[in-house]
Amino acid sequence: MIIPDSLYPVERLYKYIELGTIKTFKKGSAVLIPGEEPKALIYILSGRIRVNLVVDDGRERFIYTAGKYNMMGRLFEAYNQYYIVALEKTEICYFTKQQLEQIFQKDQEVFFDIIKNYHAKISYYMRQMAEMDLYNPTIRVVRLLYKLCMTKGVAVGDSFEIQIDLSLKRISEITGAHYVTVSKVLGGLKKKNIIEKNKNTIIIHDLKGLKRLTQETHIFSNQGRSLDNDLFPL
Amino acid sequence: MIIPDSLYPVERLYKYIELGTIKTFKKGSAVLIPGEEPKALIYILSGRIRVNLVVDDGRERFIYTAGKYNMMGRLFEAYNQYYIVALEKTEICYFTKQQLEQIFQKDQEVFFDIIKNYHAKISYYMRQMAEMDLYNPTIRVVRLLYKLCMTKGVAVGDSFEIQIDLSLKRISEITGAHYVTVSKVLGGLKKKNIIEKNKNTIIIHDLKGLKRLTQETHIFSNQGRSLDNDLFPL
Repeated sequence: MIIPDSLYPVERLYKYIELGTIKTFKKGSAVLIPGEEPKALIYILSGRIRVNLVVDDGRERFIYTAGKYNMMGRLFEAYNQYYIVALEKTEICYFTKQQLEQIFQKDQEVFFDIIKNYHAKISYYMRQMAEMDLYNPTIRVVRLLYKLCMTKGVAVGDSFEIQIDLSLKRISEITGAHYVTVSKVLGGLKKKNIIEKNKNTIIIHDLKGLKRLTQETHIFSNQGRSLDNDLFPL
Repeated sequence: MIIPDSLYPVERLYKYIELGTIKTFKKGSAVLIPGEEPKALIYILSGRIRVNLVVDDGRERFIYTAGKYNMMGRLFEAYNQYYIVALEKTEICYFTKQQLEQIFQKDQEVFFDIIKNYHAKISYYMRQMAEMDLYNPTIRVVRLLYKLCMTKGVAVGDSFEIQIDLSLKRISEITGAHYVTVSKVLGGLKKKNIIEKNKNTIIIHDLKGLKRLTQETHIFSNQGRSLDNDLFPL
């Protein structure tokens, strides 16, 4: 729920893939292009996809990545335009509404697992909206690192280590903070000896210091989320 | 999908309320307090609720309002804390997982209607996140007004009229723009003779002008969503 990757996999659906239609996508190919009509639930059998939302002026916003057992409910009218790309060779099983009805007659628990998948996504995006509203970009980066430490951090001596390959670009996409902002925050946290980020690990030297920053309104002295921020950012 | 109010009502569930448990809430009373364990699907029979998300520092963010036939899937583990208040006298029917299983056995379409409700919410909050990331507060206010006109606007002479009682506070809550920002935007649009907002109507005199502004990066001259905005807003 911290990194939008495979938000609640639905393993139970895998038993019924012989009822669906399987299609394979090459690495880099489009699984779904903006404007395509919804027709079936998308269920990932192997590989990995990246889902972007496309707004009316054509710009894209990263939404999530998903791997094996994850799904996207493309059954009904789409309010949004999405662009989905296969990040590696990906096998997808499509289930139509009729096929799902057949599955549910055999196994009602699949219903509730699908509901849990939707539930996880709603919770995540409601929270993202609230975070973007209540915290400025630098604090969102700090909060992401703190939450990662609380859920994936392992105590090593006086420090905590998170095993994760999380690029600056990815942190930028998740938090909505500019790439350079992410870089500055990480640089600042390293200088204060709070956090050290390497390729596959993040080491937290000062968890209390990090936590303190999650409740701040800003971490650089000349910065704040305020009315002036809305109206007169320069 | 533009105003987060009763996002996809599930009328079909109403037939089965004798299977659930009904409870009445007085105006202003708490339907759900932060920390309460999820246990059942909340289904509104009459009245109106307001749902806020509560973040770890105790601050709240408006999520949606909901009336008759709307639901909230409080069946499974909650990642978020919510605070729900009855805006008027409200009757709620609670359905447990077992009760829903009974209903789904009788009527599978209820499941798909519930999925559509979830689907509408996911779409809305994904889009909100993208909008908050891609457009600054002033443009979000303009975009909300433009989308309202496109969906609810009625041509009256050379203008368009939207019949809606939408307070500045509500626009602020929906867009995440500061109240004073909303006020300044509406003032600016009135001065330019683009829009006129009264108590129960919004009149759009210049739809083309309004549309043009939805694609801008800023509507005040010394403003822009940029790196500087993240780091040095003053």
